[in-house]
Amino acid sequence: MSQSSATAVAHPNIAFIKYWGNQNDALRLPQNGSISMNLGDLTTRTSVQFSSGLSEDRISVNGSFLKGEALSRVSRFMDQVRGLADEKRYAEIESVSNFPIGAGIASSAAAFAALALAGSAAAGVNLSEPELSRLARLGSGSACRSIPAGFCEWIQGDSDETSIAVSIASPASWQLTDLIAIVSTEHKKVGSTAGHSGAATSPYQQARVESAPERLVECRNAILHRNFDRLAEVSERDSTMMHAVMMTQNPPLFYWAPSSLTIMNAVADWRAEGLPCFFTLDAGPNVHVLCPSAVADEIQSRLLQLSGVQNVISSRPGGAAQIMP
Amino acid sequence: MSQSSATAVAHPNIAFIKYWGNQNDALRLPQNGSISMNLGDLTTRTSVQFSSGLSEDRISVNGSFLKGEALSRVSRFMDQVRGLADEKRYAEIESVSNFPIGAGIASSAAAFAALALAGSAAAGVNLSEPELSRLARLGSGSACRSIPAGFCEWIQGDSDETSIAVSIASPASWQLTDLIAIVSTEHKKVGSTAGHSGAATSPYQQARVESAPERLVECRNAILHRNFDRLAEVSERDSTMMHAVMMTQNPPLFYWAPSSLTIMNAVADWRAEGLPCFFTLDAGPNVHVLCPSAVADEIQSRLLQLSGVQNVISSRPGGAAQIMP
Repeated sequence: MSQSSATAVAHPNIAFIKYWGNQNDALRLPQNGSISMNLGDLTTRTSVQFSSGLSEDRISVNGSFLKGEALSRVSRFMDQVRGLADEKRYAEIESVSNFPIGAGIASSAAAFAALALAGSAAAGVNLSEPELSRLARLGSGSACRSIPAGFCEWIQGDSDETSIAVSIASPASWQLTDLIAIVSTEHKKVGSTAGHSGAATSPYQQARVESAPERLVECRNAILHRNFDRLAEVSERDSTMMHAVMMTQNPPLFYWAPSSLTIMNAVADWRAEGLPCFFTLDAGPNVHVLCPSAVADEIQSRLLQLSGVQNVISSRPGGAAQIMP
Repeated sequence: MSQSSATAVAHPNIAFIKYWGNQNDALRLPQNGSISMNLGDLTTRTSVQFSSGLSEDRISVNGSFLKGEALSRVSRFMDQVRGLADEKRYAEIESVSNFPIGAGIASSAAAFAALALAGSAAAGVNLSEPELSRLARLGSGSACRSIPAGFCEWIQGDSDETSIAVSIASPASWQLTDLIAIVSTEHKKVGSTAGHSGAATSPYQQARVESAPERLVECRNAILHRNFDRLAEVSERDSTMMHAVMMTQNPPLFYWAPSSLTIMNAVADWRAEGLPCFFTLDAGPNVHVLCPSAVADEIQSRLLQLSGVQNVISSRPGGAAQIMP
């Protein structure tokens, strides 16, 4: 007998090897594999209740109800969930995050990972971790990496069935801290809606994709051997390579703010001084500064002294998405 | 009968399609052609006097005598000049520029263009413009573009003889102004010594080089048709493509300062407002903002209001390198 409601939590993740550009936009099959770390101190908690009294899905995010395209996107995802269980009812969905929305932390990864888990459980379907990862991917590509625990690799795959994320190391395996420097942008953000589909217009996307497998090997080995210097080198290189593609797309997407460069320069200086740390940026101006947890306090205090840094959010590696009792 | 002394002036130039990476480092044969505009208001004036009383070349730049590697580089260039005329004497060389040294305006282009002309004339050799361009190129690649007048294209070529710059439009053909925004760097500059030779280590250099011919066509046509929008689009794209290569070299070269991004963002905003302008950056943090001369005052005043802009240097298109009486 199927239950009608469930609650799940999931964490956002920060990618060391980035996802940018799809081989299939509808299925969100990426052009290259990627590797990330879940951010355990940041959590999205989502509850789903199917109810026969609803004439459409009702979705609140941090207390506000979604409308228009945002509502449609989640509702189309819920159609996938309903299809797994022959569930006909609409759902009441409530999602709350403990980290600031609009702060440039990719919240859709945690949101769709939690929704995939809570939605399928509420529909009475017991999915395996790979099946959950695949389902989450349909909502937001990088959400597949927020399903398994710790350090996760999204296997590129060549079909809906084969493009899933797996855990390659547990959250306890390496005491790293992600310090997210929230910056003043001094400039409107460029919309990222057309970002992935515009990747192919960059003359550099092909070279980025073709060289991704060697960076994946380097990153995976760095994580498995807990070699910080190797992780630092390959992660900064991969981040800059993705932003170079974005900046040379048509139209160009410049996600770096002036303050982002201030931080990137400072991080390079600190590492040259012997303080282990590296930067990586997703599709936004905030800079993720990764370091061994032992030096996190020192680096956080330095970051807060840089001009343009408004706030620093700290997180250790996080676990898998999970059902709440 | 050969004369023993001569004085020449030449202008630096700003490239719309950039030179980065050689197919032959010793001969400075570039991996792709490039297009630039001479900066007529900025001038380097160089005099050369061969003298039997000297035991080595003596070279003063803005009143200071060169030593070490800087002296050797110029002296090796003078060996090329001496070789053209069977001249055995060393030279007294004096070079003075009317624009700030170390302000990130590539001064070597003007310096070697003026030296090629003054040196060959002092040695009693009357070189054609293509021959002068080729000689200047041996001193500094982009110097070959400071020999002809106005808007110049450096033909890539495949040998010392065939890699020369030619004028494709006179300085009077288009009323453009280059406003050079001098920025505070807030960070030490990365040395560019190994820059060109490191280009091959970027996974993006090959794609940049392979797609350069289409940008050269676009830029040349924009100049010949005086189509500002086309020049703006291809120049910004080419500038960003070069910096993307630099940032993904090993080791990475980040020439953009935080203030550079502030200006680039502002220029994009102003153009979106309808004010014609575009940015381009050489291997340094200062931002060249090109515009029709009719709006130069407006743009200069806006640039001076941006945070981090210390000064703005203005220049119209310039003529060929020439001998002074």
